[in-house]
Amino acid sequence: MTILVIGATGTIGSAICDSLESEHDVIRVARTSGDIRVDIESPESIRDMYEEAGSFDAVASAAGNAAFNPLDELSEDDFGLSIQSKLMGQVNLVRYGLPYLDNPRQGSFTLVSGILSQHPMPGSAAISMVNAGIEGFIRAAALDTPDGVRVNAVSPPWVSETLEEMGEDPSDGVPAAVVAKAYADSITGSASGEVLDPRDYA
Amino acid sequence: MTILVIGATGTIGSAICDSLESEHDVIRVARTSGDIRVDIESPESIRDMYEEAGSFDAVASAAGNAAFNPLDELSEDDFGLSIQSKLMGQVNLVRYGLPYLDNPRQGSFTLVSGILSQHPMPGSAAISMVNAGIEGFIRAAALDTPDGVRVNAVSPPWVSETLEEMGEDPSDGVPAAVVAKAYADSITGSASGEVLDPRDYA
Repeated sequence: MTILVIGATGTIGSAICDSLESEHDVIRVARTSGDIRVDIESPESIRDMYEEAGSFDAVASAAGNAAFNPLDELSEDDFGLSIQSKLMGQVNLVRYGLPYLDNPRQGSFTLVSGILSQHPMPGSAAISMVNAGIEGFIRAAALDTPDGVRVNAVSPPWVSETLEEMGEDPSDGVPAAVVAKAYADSITGSASGEVLDPRDYA
Repeated sequence: MTILVIGATGTIGSAICDSLESEHDVIRVARTSGDIRVDIESPESIRDMYEEAGSFDAVASAAGNAAFNPLDELSEDDFGLSIQSKLMGQVNLVRYGLPYLDNPRQGSFTLVSGILSQHPMPGSAAISMVNAGIEGFIRAAALDTPDGVRVNAVSPPWVSETLEEMGEDPSDGVPAAVVAKAYADSITGSASGEVLDPRDYA
């Protein structure tokens, strides 16, 4: 399969590429490097990316920013960025990507939400909002896609590599390679409209 | 308590007012009528509403529009409206309302999500997205509010009165008066960060 990995240079995106590239044709997409560049905040940039990629079989997204700040410090811009990037950026990956699927019957889109959707922490109001929004979107979008195209989300818990960078105990998280297993299952399995929890793949 | 009911003229909003007004001071707020008018799509209109209302103890929202359309017919404007109205409109009711709470220790905000958040149907991609977003937001916002201010959502299933208007069997839904019980429990109970299901109050 030809698989577009969006956010391919990040911790999770790199692990997705590593896990898929032995068996599939992986196209690495990121904001400032990679085989193709995209700014998912821009619908036009997404359309350009798909034009450049041509046809493909699956999109795996580990992209999107959202603002972490206490509720009384979250600004209009914080909410706006979170919506435009992680929420609508990923929604638009599905909306604009559907016509480019090479073989819809095995086609899929896998977006990223995150554990804060269901298990928030102080400061996560905007992130929890957009993560939950992604989960609501994929559940419904999966009912509307043509020809059996599947749409899922992976909801990563804290990632070991990220915890390590933060000086925290990596064993409190799940390695990025395990998160990548959830993406691989979404791409090669039969799930649709589901939120996949990487902890089920440990 | 003084309770602002936003969307007071709708099916659910009217039922909330009816159920609360014998014991509380209810201020009816709606877009084109009521004691105070508000367009929740406009942050400025929300601020004006709170200025006009002065202090209060609770906000109960049954307001917000979202677009129902198959995924491939949902436009930028459909997503934009859904986000600006039902999602950020209600989020902004909390953000801008917090400073006006008369007595934060008994203060609360109750927003509306909807069953399509967790149980989608074809055409509900935008609605399911914003409903789920509301649920993610209230779970997290409840951890950030000062002085014990509570934040919940009520997730109504199909409402009997709405089904009847649509020519469907009202017994497939829950009467608006039952939905209002969930709001009353959110306002007078101790729940915070919770999504209340009116079917638990039937």
